[in-house]
Amino acid sequence: MTQAADVKRIEKISYGDFVLFYGRGKTWLVRLTEGRDLHTHLGRIRVDSVVGKPYGTSFQSEKGEYICALKPTVEDFIMKCERLTQIVYPKDLGIIALEADICTGSDVVEVGSGSGATTIFLANIVRPRGHVYSYEVKDEFMRVAERNVKRAGLDKYVTFHNKDALQGIEEEGIDAIIVDMGDPWSMVKESWRVLKPSGHFVGITPTMNQAERLAEELRNNGFERVKCIEILLRNIEARPGKTRPSTIMVGHTAYLNFATKVLREVSQS
Amino acid sequence: MTQAADVKRIEKISYGDFVLFYGRGKTWLVRLTEGRDLHTHLGRIRVDSVVGKPYGTSFQSEKGEYICALKPTVEDFIMKCERLTQIVYPKDLGIIALEADICTGSDVVEVGSGSGATTIFLANIVRPRGHVYSYEVKDEFMRVAERNVKRAGLDKYVTFHNKDALQGIEEEGIDAIIVDMGDPWSMVKESWRVLKPSGHFVGITPTMNQAERLAEELRNNGFERVKCIEILLRNIEARPGKTRPSTIMVGHTAYLNFATKVLREVSQS
Amino acid sequence: MTQAADVKRIEKISYGDFVLFYGRGKTWLVRLTEGRDLHTHLGRIRVDSVVGKPYGTSFQSEKGEYICALKPTVEDFIMKCERLTQIVYPKDLGIIALEADICTGSDVVEVGSGSGATTIFLANIVRPRGHVYSYEVKDEFMRVAERNVKRAGLDKYVTFHNKDALQGIEEEGIDAIIVDMGDPWSMVKESWRVLKPSGHFVGITPTMNQAERLAEELRNNGFERVKCIEILLRNIEARPGKTRPSTIMVGHTAYLNFATKVLREVSQS
Amino acid sequence: MTQAADVKRIEKISYGDFVLFYGRGKTWLVRLTEGRDLHTHLGRIRVDSVVGKPYGTSFQSEKGEYICALKPTVEDFIMKCERLTQIVYPKDLGIIALEADICTGSDVVEVGSGSGATTIFLANIVRPRGHVYSYEVKDEFMRVAERNVKRAGLDKYVTFHNKDALQGIEEEGIDAIIVDMGDPWSMVKESWRVLKPSGHFVGITPTMNQAERLAEELRNNGFERVKCIEILLRNIEARPGKTRPSTIMVGHTAYLNFATKVLREVSQS
Repeated sequence: MTQAADVKRIEKISYGDFVLFYGRGKTWLVRLTEGRDLHTHLGRIRVDSVVGKPYGTSFQSEKGEYICALKPTVEDFIMKCERLTQIVYPKDLGIIALEADICTGSDVVEVGSGSGATTIFLANIVRPRGHVYSYEVKDEFMRVAERNVKRAGLDKYVTFHNKDALQGIEEEGIDAIIVDMGDPWSMVKESWRVLKPSGHFVGITPTMNQAERLAEELRNNGFERVKCIEILLRNIEARPGKTRPSTIMVGHTAYLNFATKVLREVSQS
Repeated sequence: MTQAADVKRIEKISYGDFVLFYGRGKTWLVRLTEGRDLHTHLGRIRVDSVVGKPYGTSFQSEKGEYICALKPTVEDFIMKCERLTQIVYPKDLGIIALEADICTGSDVVEVGSGSGATTIFLANIVRPRGHVYSYEVKDEFMRVAERNVKRAGLDKYVTFHNKDALQGIEEEGIDAIIVDMGDPWSMVKESWRVLKPSGHFVGITPTMNQAERLAEELRNNGFERVKCIEILLRNIEARPGKTRPSTIMVGHTAYLNFATKVLREVSQS
Repeated sequence: MTQAADVKRIEKISYGDFVLFYGRGKTWLVRLTEGRDLHTHLGRIRVDSVVGKPYGTSFQSEKGEYICALKPTVEDFIMKCERLTQIVYPKDLGIIALEADICTGSDVVEVGSGSGATTIFLANIVRPRGHVYSYEVKDEFMRVAERNVKRAGLDKYVTFHNKDALQGIEEEGIDAIIVDMGDPWSMVKESWRVLKPSGHFVGITPTMNQAERLAEELRNNGFERVKCIEILLRNIEARPGKTRPSTIMVGHTAYLNFATKVLREVSQS
Repeated sequence: MTQAADVKRIEKISYGDFVLFYGRGKTWLVRLTEGRDLHTHLGRIRVDSVVGKPYGTSFQSEKGEYICALKPTVEDFIMKCERLTQIVYPKDLGIIALEADICTGSDVVEVGSGSGATTIFLANIVRPRGHVYSYEVKDEFMRVAERNVKRAGLDKYVTFHNKDALQGIEEEGIDAIIVDMGDPWSMVKESWRVLKPSGHFVGITPTMNQAERLAEELRNNGFERVKCIEILLRNIEARPGKTRPSTIMVGHTAYLNFATKVLREVSQS
């Protein structure tokens, strides 16, 4: 296993970079600072031992444990967010992007920044030409969301509005809107107004009652292709001769509502 | 519900554009050609009646049925692919992008173009600066995949190789590789070679035997964070006073294997 | 594989007995009548060829197909019911018996005989000393339920009441009550009245709205240990080297509500 | 809510009886002994305060907490077993009884008594005329299983064999056999020998590999209707206006294999 082939485009780790240290199934997301080593139950990890090496390097901790210095993924930034709120899980985020057709260049409104986990996900997709406009009424949440988005290096793709989206969304001609709040039905009319025709609404709701009320409100206010799903993720322990699903799983996170804005000026074909 | 606000950036439908017609829960993905109307069980849809209108317009078919002319999403192009093979489902694609950290600018290798459904998904994410290199040994499949990718307007982001990837992948320094073939373990060493360190491997396998063997091969050949999951999607019929999951669901599509390339030159911390 | 050991207690098939013919994954539940052969896509099955043989015999159809003559299980009688209504599925029935502690000797009330599938299940458990009292307001349903229960040979353990249970259940001191109707909450007070203290209530409801309202009504009317579950059954295709769950599954049948009657004369410990 | 109607057949609690105390969602399974009060985090529960009362009585603990004195179900005895091993869960037991057609009067062999949880379940079903023959090679497990079965009051319906079932099952003409061991395929031939024709085999296996090998062994050794399933149970928190599945669930316990013994003397129809 020579690494001769890997010379091309390999990113070298520098001070200031984020590294995901990985050992024995545990991970630590760290921004490298000169002289600030990482102390873990697997032993001290000397920060200067990875600087100048490529991401993907492995080495031993001071206790002789095998450690990898990986490049953090966007999912790592999401899962390692500083959290004040429940975050939307990757299993749900993945399908949201597809169903709402969010891609590079999209302009997206998020109602309820929460801890910024979804914001990070969205910003990473829409960059470099698209933009995320994120509304959060609570000061405290917004500050945390901003910090998390900044840490992920995505702040230039996000505009935060510290205001109640119910009092009006400032953008128009939006490609998709993601509503993650307790009473998402109250945002349906305003969402319709600011979306492009054929644009996509996404609602994220923990209870069936919210999903039900939201779906009905969408159907009654100019949305079509209204649907509701839930996603279950099961970990499989794939080991020779003893493959099986994990004993414990996350049984529920949220119902996801999707709908598409339609103009109601019904003409004859 | 006036549409005054929607003047900004609204795309008008022209001949040559794809439109997703939607009525009574059914959809038709059509490229508009002058004089070629769409004949459906909901009545004839006159193509010239939507030209010049924005996406998201609604109108009546000749039978008086309510029809919407929507902008097709990438998911629509995926689901409406001409198919010679089983395709990877959106529920699985969404999490693949996240776990393999595929985003705008990524260079991705796909082994097994199949019908091109995954290729479309990947190309849409990595554009405009990333690229997908898709290997398919069967002529017939590759031609269908090419047609599907072209129809989705994403052909400039994809290079097809009509060859057996086992005989060597031509690219190097790749961000992620997606392997969808019967014996994915046979691609593990070659995948390691062509991935950047800290790059991501994805295996898509219908059986647990394949998932098991692949996971072990990954662990034995320089990959870490090896994991295997399955995703279940459940449709919820959200209707006032009678919300319930749908009776029939897709119970299984594939196991998804993920792993990260690590360089094995273990040094001391 | 000699069958010498099997002489003990082997049941021989006679005319009038039910046989479950099984071939190529298909089953036929038939009562043997002299001269009435079974015509299937696997060829004619001559009824007289199994008479006098033990259950569990195999033979060839006239087309040379391999056929087994099995003893029908209670589940076979349930699944082969003549149906006017949706039946409760075995996956749900099994847990109902456990949660409601229904066993040999139990006296059980069923509200909503439906097609008699649940009735068959219950009667088979409580026999020979317990009894099932089954209420059905619709004539038509009750006649079908009676026929199905009789066919399963369990009619002496069941008393049908062709009346609306809301107008009063005639029995008292009941061990468990199974309510399968559209508005099960309306039966909560009457259920409490006729159950023994510490007796068990079971509600079977397709929608979450019903489950929610029922659970609340139970909590407000002298029931404890109120819980609600759903059961998912997944078929696994277990074949050498290609084991996987089946593609299609039943995604939803019903929510199951359970509760225990408690006397509310709260004294000091 | 008068209790006048409940006088019939109400069981009064005596010393020596088992009571399931229930308070704030917690349960304690206790055999009442004079002078031995129960000390819980909800306060002391005075044992003499429930003696002479019916099951289903409620009262206050010394801390003023609301407590119910319920009649323990068979499921309670199963879940409260003294455990040396993983037990089979109620969700799986319920379907096992149905698929293997185990009912009052059945003679059942269990291979692998484990902690006796399944034994309790089986004994309670087959009583009073059927019997369970339970094989356990490990002394320690068998003693625990015996204690658990005795505690549930079901010991007269169970014969324990402290021996390796691979060396021969002593019974014949058995209705069903439940095999819960690491290499269940090794019991297939012996199971076929001791089952009645048309009798039922059940295998309980945590891994897909075991399920796969067992299924194949069954198909190759005179069994038909070979199938494999898994059961998922999801708790639903049914509360007014906020109904949702629980966040955490048990994602996997075991695969269940079922098969029916068939005699292979293939004759012509």
